[in-house]
Amino acid sequence: MEEIRSSQVESMVVVHGGGSFGHPLAKKYRLSDGYVNDSQLIGFAETRQAMMKLNKIILDSAMNRQLRCVSVQPSAFIRTRNKRIEEIDLGIVRNILDLSMIPLMFGDVVLDQELKFCILSGDQLTSRLAMELEAKRMILATNVDGVFDSNPKNPEAKLMKRMTIQDVKNLVEIEAESDQSVDVTGEMIGKMREILPVVEKGIQVIVLNGRMPGRISMALSGKRVIGTTIEK
Amino acid sequence: MEEIRSSQVESMVVVHGGGSFGHPLAKKYRLSDGYVNDSQLIGFAETRQAMMKLNKIILDSAMNRQLRCVSVQPSAFIRTRNKRIEEIDLGIVRNILDLSMIPLMFGDVVLDQELKFCILSGDQLTSRLAMELEAKRMILATNVDGVFDSNPKNPEAKLMKRMTIQDVKNLVEIEAESDQSVDVTGEMIGKMREILPVVEKGIQVIVLNGRMPGRISMALSGKRVIGTTIEK
Repeated sequence: MEEIRSSQVESMVVVHGGGSFGHPLAKKYRLSDGYVNDSQLIGFAETRQAMMKLNKIILDSAMNRQLRCVSVQPSAFIRTRNKRIEEIDLGIVRNILDLSMIPLMFGDVVLDQELKFCILSGDQLTSRLAMELEAKRMILATNVDGVFDSNPKNPEAKLMKRMTIQDVKNLVEIEAESDQSVDVTGEMIGKMREILPVVEKGIQVIVLNGRMPGRISMALSGKRVIGTTIEK
Repeated sequence: MEEIRSSQVESMVVVHGGGSFGHPLAKKYRLSDGYVNDSQLIGFAETRQAMMKLNKIILDSAMNRQLRCVSVQPSAFIRTRNKRIEEIDLGIVRNILDLSMIPLMFGDVVLDQELKFCILSGDQLTSRLAMELEAKRMILATNVDGVFDSNPKNPEAKLMKRMTIQDVKNLVEIEAESDQSVDVTGEMIGKMREILPVVEKGIQVIVLNGRMPGRISMALSGKRVIGTTIEK
């Protein structure tokens, strides 16, 4: 949140993932593939609770820095169909932005019209928001420096500083065609799939390491930063 | 929450108010009459934060009692016009009820189409939910025993055990006609205004003292309880 404050960029939506709060529970109760039996329901409730808890921590951190952040719980107004957002009414999010405040959202367990419930990833949500709100830039803060040409744990892996939409398509296709997951880019492939239509729409996407001080702030301000810049 | 658990009633929506979390901030920043100037915006954000904090405490209390409670943030999907809810999409709330879980909602600061923002009282929200969801019963837990024939602080005030819709109308009219607030029923008059259409629709409304152990639980179970029962 310090990064956001120091960037002095005013108009943005912030989305956080589930981290160590949501993911272990979602996995334990197998929520990602939808309803199987009633024993998952307490897991649904517990995961929602965990996400509210994490959101509160992040919100408090923002408010302590005088950022006018306003939590908007995604699962209160977004339902999916087969894990995908269909319609989304962003009237409230737009109103908050119009008032020069920052909507704070998160990956969440949502109701699904086919599967009863499922996980709405922060990546899917962010990509959709960027497109609907016609964002100038979408920044994905991860725990690696950006998109690498092979698994970033591999010491010979090289950071790709610039990618075109064709590069992204190639990555996604290589992954889809391989028998077993080749894990070209660590956990990056899911993000790559989601950002394809975002880049297609002409929105700049930057993947960077959110753990390194200054990077989010610089990227928000439009400055050059260590990471992967993806453009059409 | 213990009252709800011990009632063993399964299908319900729980709504809480702002209490000492939301009300002082909403008053400090004069949020109830909408936007006047930008200095209120931090108050808007702080009040939303306070409501999330209170909601977390109540949610945690419910989950600790094995109630499958799921928070649904009202301000994420409800906008008002001149302080009143117009359309409301309860698809998500219905889905949660269909899964035998308890939606947990609260009075909140919401975006308003005319005033930019305003307070959505728990009373307005609860009344609207009861009508839309065709509830069997609506229970208002207050800090007094029910509706009295004069200010309950007055030692001669008598608890009205039963009221008809005509009695409610009379109360509201007396209040409206008096030059100064006669405060017939303490802070009850706002609630009486909201419940009029609820009672009109044939839904039983019970006003009781939520601080007295056992009363909420008994009312939920349909048992007789000290309080005011209002029926058409």
